[in-house]
Amino acid sequence: MTRKTYTVGQIAEALGAEAFGDAALPVTSVAEPQSAGPTDLAMATDKTYAEKLAQGQAQAAVLWQGADWEALGLKAAIVPGRPRYAMSGLTRLLDPGQGFPSGIHPSAIIDPAAEIGQNVSIGALSVVAAGAQIGDDCVIGPQCYIGWNVTLGPRALLREQVSIGARVTIGADFFAQPGVRLGGDGFSFVTEDKSGIEAVRETLGDTQDTQAQGWTRIHSLGAVTIGDNVDLGACVNIDNGTIRDTQVGDGCKMDNFVHIGHNVVIGKDCLICGHSGVAGSTRVGNNVVLGGMTGVSDNIFIGDRVITGGGTKVLSSIPAGRVVLGYPATKMDKQIEIFKAIRRLPRIIADVAALQKAVFKSDRSD
Amino acid sequence: MTRKTYTVGQIAEALGAEAFGDAALPVTSVAEPQSAGPTDLAMATDKTYAEKLAQGQAQAAVLWQGADWEALGLKAAIVPGRPRYAMSGLTRLLDPGQGFPSGIHPSAIIDPAAEIGQNVSIGALSVVAAGAQIGDDCVIGPQCYIGWNVTLGPRALLREQVSIGARVTIGADFFAQPGVRLGGDGFSFVTEDKSGIEAVRETLGDTQDTQAQGWTRIHSLGAVTIGDNVDLGACVNIDNGTIRDTQVGDGCKMDNFVHIGHNVVIGKDCLICGHSGVAGSTRVGNNVVLGGMTGVSDNIFIGDRVITGGGTKVLSSIPAGRVVLGYPATKMDKQIEIFKAIRRLPRIIADVAALQKAVFKSDRSD
Amino acid sequence: MTRKTYTVGQIAEALGAEAFGDAALPVTSVAEPQSAGPTDLAMATDKTYAEKLAQGQAQAAVLWQGADWEALGLKAAIVPGRPRYAMSGLTRLLDPGQGFPSGIHPSAIIDPAAEIGQNVSIGALSVVAAGAQIGDDCVIGPQCYIGWNVTLGPRALLREQVSIGARVTIGADFFAQPGVRLGGDGFSFVTEDKSGIEAVRETLGDTQDTQAQGWTRIHSLGAVTIGDNVDLGACVNIDNGTIRDTQVGDGCKMDNFVHIGHNVVIGKDCLICGHSGVAGSTRVGNNVVLGGMTGVSDNIFIGDRVITGGGTKVLSSIPAGRVVLGYPATKMDKQIEIFKAIRRLPRIIADVAALQKAVFKSDRSD
Repeated sequence: MTRKTYTVGQIAEALGAEAFGDAALPVTSVAEPQSAGPTDLAMATDKTYAEKLAQGQAQAAVLWQGADWEALGLKAAIVPGRPRYAMSGLTRLLDPGQGFPSGIHPSAIIDPAAEIGQNVSIGALSVVAAGAQIGDDCVIGPQCYIGWNVTLGPRALLREQVSIGARVTIGADFFAQPGVRLGGDGFSFVTEDKSGIEAVRETLGDTQDTQAQGWTRIHSLGAVTIGDNVDLGACVNIDNGTIRDTQVGDGCKMDNFVHIGHNVVIGKDCLICGHSGVAGSTRVGNNVVLGGMTGVSDNIFIGDRVITGGGTKVLSSIPAGRVVLGYPATKMDKQIEIFKAIRRLPRIIADVAALQKAVFKSDRSD
Repeated sequence: MTRKTYTVGQIAEALGAEAFGDAALPVTSVAEPQSAGPTDLAMATDKTYAEKLAQGQAQAAVLWQGADWEALGLKAAIVPGRPRYAMSGLTRLLDPGQGFPSGIHPSAIIDPAAEIGQNVSIGALSVVAAGAQIGDDCVIGPQCYIGWNVTLGPRALLREQVSIGARVTIGADFFAQPGVRLGGDGFSFVTEDKSGIEAVRETLGDTQDTQAQGWTRIHSLGAVTIGDNVDLGACVNIDNGTIRDTQVGDGCKMDNFVHIGHNVVIGKDCLICGHSGVAGSTRVGNNVVLGGMTGVSDNIFIGDRVITGGGTKVLSSIPAGRVVLGYPATKMDKQIEIFKAIRRLPRIIADVAALQKAVFKSDRSD
Repeated sequence: MTRKTYTVGQIAEALGAEAFGDAALPVTSVAEPQSAGPTDLAMATDKTYAEKLAQGQAQAAVLWQGADWEALGLKAAIVPGRPRYAMSGLTRLLDPGQGFPSGIHPSAIIDPAAEIGQNVSIGALSVVAAGAQIGDDCVIGPQCYIGWNVTLGPRALLREQVSIGARVTIGADFFAQPGVRLGGDGFSFVTEDKSGIEAVRETLGDTQDTQAQGWTRIHSLGAVTIGDNVDLGACVNIDNGTIRDTQVGDGCKMDNFVHIGHNVVIGKDCLICGHSGVAGSTRVGNNVVLGGMTGVSDNIFIGDRVITGGGTKVLSSIPAGRVVLGYPATKMDKQIEIFKAIRRLPRIIADVAALQKAVFKSDRSD
């Protein structure tokens, strides 16, 4: 369980980047320039960072195109085309991981009617229910629950205390952070007669004379279907669909506390930031980015490549390609203009009062 | 663990709906018209849905009042009075469930001083602490925790990895989705001298000359009391009260990630949507609906039958029957008028400047 | 597992408060005046509360300075200097706790390469991984996970189902509510070429002609470092840093569902309320208070002693000492003025139209 060691040359080759200087120099991790130890590769991807190299002990660094590595006092350097992208390869190589033991822990409880693939690890005190199918090379952390008839594709990595409800289907290369919850029942309730909410949706007014009523659950007969190469942050929740599966497309990435409601369909390669939620039956296109704390109403459509800024509340459908911000969601450039205008509003009100006084010889606003 | 089969006639009878055609036709599940198989009951509750019946293989469907089932090529049909409500009965009948095994799993750890009712199932690796009382016919999923002196009423269904802290009391017919957390300590901290927050609450201004201070916990001596027929979504959190229990009334339904703070009292039949939170010591009436991501401040009152739209932030008390939206919460019709007005604000500012120029021969706003 | 009993005199002495009347009177818990039993200490810290003493059976109460305890019919009274602060000492004394059994439960799975301090309790079905170091006098609840090479300081209290990922370091006197998740991988993804988000950040406009691309993970090589005396609410998530640890300073208190992103640095004695989130690489000063549902953007700075009101969305850095509210965050007094002005906006628009008609003989706004 010690960290792997690579040479500068091996790392540069893995990244498709140029290496300079002593390609045999060993590297065990990556660090900020000022706190780098002698076997750390310092990330000094612009001049500001490079100035701090002297405060640390780095002998090798990742530098920007055109940097003079010798003048910086280094023994070796790596210069990638796009340093931000190089970070993905670099951190994948050097990730020390969670140290989960290999193999199936004797305390794991695996139903005889589950099918476990080749080279699968299952952590201490995990439970795998009947009918579950676990693909090859999966790593299931400790204290996880894999429900009845779940299908988990190859090479999944589940961190500790992840739960997957019955009949959920997941593609290849799935990565779930701690506490992910898949396959809760959808939040779908109905009243025997028309409810206050239905009345309000029709009128945007008050609750009329609707009677106070109790709520009856609509059970979820569907489950959740997740594509390949999906990463879910800690505590992400994805609920079951009502009569078909809730769907998440290939390549989607979700941050902590994201909530995906029942019947939602999400396209490919979407990025959904922390505390965001998509309410029931909404359809989200491909390559959509939802900023942190974005809320999306139920039963609407979000087009391909839409981007929402932090805190956006989307109350109606958004066409493809639009960038929005605010509550309610508004085109970002327009919203920023509105934010500025709102700051001036108390002054404008005074101006209008002054104009009224001048024009009408009275102030009618108050 | 195969799905149950019903006939069209049995389903119609259970729903109190009219059946047409071959009442003996078997049904195993429900589906959308276009993806229905030969034993699926298609949900074709309006003409738009019905047009897609031809794309699927359904032989029976749920139709709207007055629909011509024979013209749609069906062998049988069910016509309920209110199709949306019929969905609750239909999905309850056909719910395949989670496949939790019956009985008490040998790996469950049950304190000898716990009282377990008749016909209770407890899943693998669940823990039941001393003094806990589990009512008859409860199903406790795998890896749950039932704390010291908890009382759980009859017919509860707890999904996987639910935790219930000491001294929590729950009524009959409770349903908890995965990862529900009951009985955390309330978020209540105090400083030795007056804090910056207390100063701001008094003045709405700055933090005055309050000293930086550390925070000391006020422990929760109370717990949580939950009524009958309450459903909690995945990861719902309800915190303990300080010197009495936090309370949730009969028939309340909460969606994923709902947070109920310490000392809160919630009435009956409330519906609280995803990511909503009610801060400490607030009282919520009966039949209240909080839309997704609604935040409710501490120490206020929300009257009966109040409805909040998605994203609403409630900063002060709301009288009974009101429908609100926005940040801060405003009557919904007024808020929609305001949203429209705000979009015109940059133009209005230009108009005011033009007026000032005309009236005063100068533009004083800039 | 019965509640401890104290005398009125012992409690007064522990609180440094004055005792009146029968100091030997026994007290087992604290209650509201109207529901107090004969051994409950009633909290009657102002006249309104004191009026309800007659409805209960309290023989002793906590009163305000100058109250006439005998006239209230009590046998004993405690009068602290600052009653709100006294609640912390009082509830700490009388907290019945969770009833977790002492010692290491035989079902706990502890790697032989873990180091367990003196007088440690570890609950049923908890897992402690190799290299973990558990300080003296820690209490780890049931079904917890302590990862590889975690360091947990002395006197920690972990409630049920808490998980701590590899290499996380925690100081003394840590308190984690149920379902806390430490050490998830940071939410950091990169595209091979410039992404739509990067384009929008440059232009605040649309996504230009950026190509739809997939997302590649930047792994977290860092972990999380937490100071002394930190309390985390149920389901709090703190993610690992990229090349150094995410940091939380001494004395911080976080409420349920708080999310702290990768690389964030939080100072000392901050109070972060429910559903708040701080996005990646942001730095937060000391003694900061974030109200409920506050969102803080990535890569910004929040100065010391900043306070945000409920629902605030912080899109840019805030200087020390400022009190803010709203979306976007605005100085609180200014924001309250703006909230009032916005409510008048529809009327103002009508006024401007009337002015235009009068001045220009036309209404140009529509």
